[in-house]
Amino acid sequence: MPERVINVATRPLNDYVFNVVVSFNQGISELVIKGRGKFISKAVDVYNALLRRLGDSVELIGVNIGSERFKGRRRAFIAIKIRHKS
Amino acid sequence: MPERVINVATRPLNDYVFNVVVSFNQGISELVIKGRGKFISKAVDVYNALLRRLGDSVELIGVNIGSERFKGRRRAFIAIKIRHKS
Repeated sequence: MPERVINVATRPLNDYVFNVVVSFNQGISELVIKGRGKFISKAVDVYNALLRRLGDSVELIGVNIGSERFKGRRRAFIAIKIRHKS
Repeated sequence: MPERVINVATRPLNDYVFNVVVSFNQGISELVIKGRGKFISKAVDVYNALLRRLGDSVELIGVNIGSERFKGRRRAFIAIKIRHKS
C-alpha cells in the first residue's frame, strides 16, 4: 500500500490535524505530513498540534527536507514521518 | 565548545548562507540552522541554498522539529544540523 501523505497548504490547520486523526482511526499507523514553500512552517504546526492532542501516542520517525519539482517549479519541502502507537 | 547555531529570521536569505560559509571556513565543521515560527520555511531555504552553493560537501546530519518557549511564547521550531566535509 502506498504511504499516505497529508499535503499541508491553504486549508485551516485543524483540517489537517483532523485528517491525520481520521487516518489513525482507520488503522493507518504511519503517514507523512508534507509542506512545500511557505507551507513548511504550517506542516510543523500540524505536527505540534498533533502532539498536543494525542500526546505520547504520536512518534516522530524522521524529518526530511530538500527541494523538488512541483507544478513546474523547484520548491523547498519538508516531509515529517510519524507513527501512531496504539 | 558549544555548538554554533545560525538563527534564521528577518535578514536576507544570503546573509545566513554567508554566515554558514564563513563558519565552515573558520574550521567549524558542524552547525545548526534554526528557524522559529514563520521562519521555519526560510531555514529550509537556507539549507537548500547551501546545497546549491557547496554541493556534496554539505551533509545533512539530521532535522529536529518541535515547540519551545521563546521570548515568552511557545513557538514551533526547526533545527537543521549539517556537517561540512572538507
